[in-house]
Order: sequence, then C-alpha cells, then structure tokens
Amino acid sequence: MNTYSIGIDIGGTNTDIGLVRDDGRCVAKKNLPTNKYFDADLYVSDIYDQIKLLMQENNVDKIEGIGIAAPVGNYYTGCIENASNLNFKGIVDLKALFRSYIDVPVVVSNDANAAAYGELVYGGAKGMKHFIMFTLGTGVGSGVVVDGKLVLGKTGGAGELGHAILIPEGRQCGCGNKGCLETYCSATGIRRTALEMIENTPDYDGALRKVNPEELTSKMVGDAAKYGDPLAIKVFEKTGYLLGIAMANAVTFSGPEAVFLFGGPVKAGDVLLNPVRKSFEEHLCFIFKGSVEIRVSELPDNDAAILGAAALVKA
Amino acid sequence: MNTYSIGIDIGGTNTDIGLVRDDGRCVAKKNLPTNKYFDADLYVSDIYDQIKLLMQENNVDKIEGIGIAAPVGNYYTGCIENASNLNFKGIVDLKALFRSYIDVPVVVSNDANAAAYGELVYGGAKGMKHFIMFTLGTGVGSGVVVDGKLVLGKTGGAGELGHAILIPEGRQCGCGNKGCLETYCSATGIRRTALEMIENTPDYDGALRKVNPEELTSKMVGDAAKYGDPLAIKVFEKTGYLLGIAMANAVTFSGPEAVFLFGGPVKAGDVLLNPVRKSFEEHLCFIFKGSVEIRVSELPDNDAAILGAAALVKA
Repeated sequence: MNTYSIGIDIGGTNTDIGLVRDDGRCVAKKNLPTNKYFDADLYVSDIYDQIKLLMQENNVDKIEGIGIAAPVGNYYTGCIENASNLNFKGIVDLKALFRSYIDVPVVVSNDANAAAYGELVYGGAKGMKHFIMFTLGTGVGSGVVVDGKLVLGKTGGAGELGHAILIPEGRQCGCGNKGCLETYCSATGIRRTALEMIENTPDYDGALRKVNPEELTSKMVGDAAKYGDPLAIKVFEKTGYLLGIAMANAVTFSGPEAVFLFGGPVKAGDVLLNPVRKSFEEHLCFIFKGSVEIRVSELPDNDAAILGAAALVKA
Repeated sequence: MNTYSIGIDIGGTNTDIGLVRDDGRCVAKKNLPTNKYFDADLYVSDIYDQIKLLMQENNVDKIEGIGIAAPVGNYYTGCIENASNLNFKGIVDLKALFRSYIDVPVVVSNDANAAAYGELVYGGAKGMKHFIMFTLGTGVGSGVVVDGKLVLGKTGGAGELGHAILIPEGRQCGCGNKGCLETYCSATGIRRTALEMIENTPDYDGALRKVNPEELTSKMVGDAAKYGDPLAIKVFEKTGYLLGIAMANAVTFSGPEAVFLFGGPVKAGDVLLNPVRKSFEEHLCFIFKGSVEIRVSELPDNDAAILGAAALVKA
C-alpha cells in the first residue's frame, strides 16, 4: 500500500501545498497567497485546512509527516527566522504551529537543502551517499549530502555555496560580500554578465541589443544562445567557466559521487552545460578525476519544490 | 585503567611510531628511515618490531589498534596508492600487511584527515560535532568533521581544500591547476609571496633582501615580521587575507563550530592570525556571523602527527 506525505513550499508570493505519494508523485496540489497573510497563526490554520481537503479529496486518511521548504527555514528549530521576503516578522515556529493541529513529524528546512533531499529521495540521487546540489535561480543555493544525510552544520544553515567567494573583490553581492558565486551564476548574475558584455561590445547588434536592458532576463539570453547569438553564447561560456570552477571547488570538500544542477538557467541546456563540463573537467583536482559525475536534476519542474519539501520527512 | 593505541606517521624521510595513551599523551616513540626501504613487506615487519619494543618497554600488553597517517593513505582501502614521495611503487596494502602480524583494527588515512581527527579526539575540538582543520606546511591540507565524523567522500579523498581554487588563473600549482589555496597559503606559498614582493619593491632594503633567495623560508619571513619588517608584515597580511577568504568559503559548506589552523606557518602567531581574523570576519557570510571560532590546534607540536594517526583508531 502507498504512503503519503505533505510537502509545503513557502515562497514570498505563493505557498504550494502538495500531497506526495511514496513513489515520488505529487498526486494533488493546493495554493495559498503567502503575501496576503500577516498573521502566522491564521496562515498555518488555512494551510492546515488545505491539507485536510487534499487528504479528503484523495481518500488519504493518514500522512507520514509534513515537510516545509522556506527560504530561511531552520531544520534544528523548525522555525523561519526574520524572513526578509515574508510578512511574518521575527521568529515563526512553524513546527509548533502545525503540531498544534496534527500529531505527525514536521520538518522545516531551507529550499536548496529541500531540493537536494528531494533529489536523494525521489530523483536522480536515489541510493547515493555523497552528492552536492546547486540550485540556480534568483540566487544560487546549495545542498550537500554526506553519508546519505544533509549537512546542516552547527546552526542548520550549512550548504550556502552560493555565498562562497569565487572572485575576491569581484561583483557586489546582496549579502554584503564581493565576488560570491551567486553574483555570476544565478539568473540575476547571467543577466548582469549579459548587460556588461552588451555594453562592452559596441559592434554587437544581435537580438539582445534590441531588448530594453531593464527587461532583459537570463531566459532571453539562453534562448538567444540556442539560436546562435555569439554574445549570448559568450555569456554562457563565462557563466559555465565560473560555475565549473565552483563545482570543482565544492568537490574538494566532500568528494561526492555527483554534482547536480537544478533551476531555470539549467534549462538553457548545452549552451550552459557544455562550458560547465569543460571547466569542471579542467579544474577538477586530479585526486577526484573520473570519480564525479555532473548531473541535471531529475525532479519534475512543476513539483520539484513540493517533492523536496515532502522528502524532508524522510531525513 | 588506561588503554593504548599505536600512531604511525609515514613521511617521505622518516616514519614515527608512537605509543599513545587514551588521555592523549604519546608515552614513547620510535623512528625508522622510510627512504631506506624499497620493500614494503620488510618495512612493515620492521615497524612491527618497533611496536613490540614500544609495548614491552612500557609494560603494555594490549593495544586498541594501529592508526596510520600517510600522504596518500586511503581510509576505505587501507592502502597507500602511488605515493610520489615513497620508494614503494603502486598500491601497498598497509592494512593487510599489519593485520598479518596482529589482530587489531588498522586504520589508514591521509595526514590532514588524521590531524583533524587528532584534534577531535585529543585536542581542542573535543566534543565538537562540526569543524574544519587547515594544515599549513609544504602544501595546505584539510580535514572536515561533520556530525562528529570525518568527511571521506566517495573515494576516501575528501577534504582537499588546499586545492580549492581561490584565484582563478592565479599561481601555477603542482596539482596542474592554477590559483589553488596552497599556492598562496602554504609555507611554500608564503615564500613565493615574499620573493615576489622583494622583487617588486626595489626600495626595500630590510633583512629579507640580504637572504639568498634560494634559501629564504617562510619561517624567516615570520621571524622578520615579528621584528617589524614592513615587507614581511605585508607578506603575512596578504597570506592572512587570502586564508581568511578560504576559511570563510569553507564555512559556507559545512557551517562548523570552529575552523582550526595547524602547522609551521601558524607559529608566526599574530602577524598571521590578526590578518586571518580580520579577513575571516569581513568575508564570513552573514548567515554564519557569530557562530564560528578561529582556533589554533592544541595538539603538542612534536607529537601532533602521531596523535592524529592514533586517533584514527577511534574513528
């Protein structure tokens, strides 16, 4: 008989709630507008109503637990703490709030750690003991699995490779430091590289020149690269070169079986992945040559965050 | 009653063999010239004779195990593999060789991992769950402890932060890559920085200018810095700046309680540690601010390698 868990993905705008079967299928979903809530008690109460609905509508009378992915979710405390993109201020004890409604395990973590755990439980990392996942989006997140377990560290905040400094004194990062990986290899970083290259290449008159700079996205750059736009290709060559170094650096830490890539920019496909592979092979320390694969996440796009959250229950 | 282990530190020139009491004291030592041996069977047989002597002379009739630290020691296989600085070619199964003489656990690892484990079992990391050790010597080694265990990775070679790339396209490293941490922050790297600075500062006429460049050592630079030599101070400022970044980067990975520093260059003291602390605080990602200490290894200098090796038995 199948078992079920609930995965909740808390974003600044939306909260997705999914009923996940143990074979890794999200069988049904509900949605709430996170930014309409200013009161955490009411927010959790409304989520719980949706959980009950999901269970009733799918004839599920028991769940194994609730996994919650949130930008600043803390695994150890079960809280979200001073989330800059949420209306709930201070520390919100999600675990305690959910446990006041239902007596099942409630596990909270940040979204990149949840994505890594989703890959381990439901995706391409099934059976792996050691891997690293980079999630490329507005920022760059990461999750690290060592000996089959998430690396959480002293405070639960480990696996922040997006804020490892790749270029000392490089680009200003929102975190306050300069040269963090995410200033180059996030969707935002790719956009930034494209804008710089357009500005510094006066004789470029391709497709990206025609876009209003304010409206340029990394997806547009990816599409242009696929159509052979030489500047867009150079943008991804630079991005892939730097990401490959960051991935090779991460390998020196934990000597994993694989490094996974996840997120929007990865959908650019080979225009990104070919330079990544080239740079990774070139920069991988000889000790690890031949022992590490580069893999693209196998979680289905639409449900990846929910699956990751639900997987936390198995952590 | 006290228990005892044997710690063996295999270097290219010497092999140190120590009898280690469970309170972390190396009660007696023996020594063999590694480079005089070309036959691994004879080498292990002679080491075993020394172990028997150590036990007899100290009235110890039982040991808990044998821990062996070797530059390319593999924890999973118990072998040393193609060691470039040893006369034994190919793969030498140290574990099997020792086990043919004595039926106790035999654990092999590389020297930086052993040093980290020594710190955990006998040194300043006692009771810690998460820490990272950097060992500064001819190269830079590292050992990572997560959840109280050494991170070994898929092949047993994890924790090679000396070969994380700190400056893309930077200094040539012996490993084939460019810009590895160890090209800047090892004793050799410090020497290299000093030679560069002397060359690029024509009006410098301090103590280091008088040293034959071939004979300049990082220790001389450290001594000069302690006496206020402005160029030597700058060398350590640069070294500390870069090491602080590397340490802050390492923290993003595993969110440890402490980062330990070990090895010759650390003896330069505050001329190195002050810039390290400054750079570390400046570059530590805000998520980890206030949660990580910088510590100097508390293992006694002369016995550190033996204690680290012996500690492996408790791994």
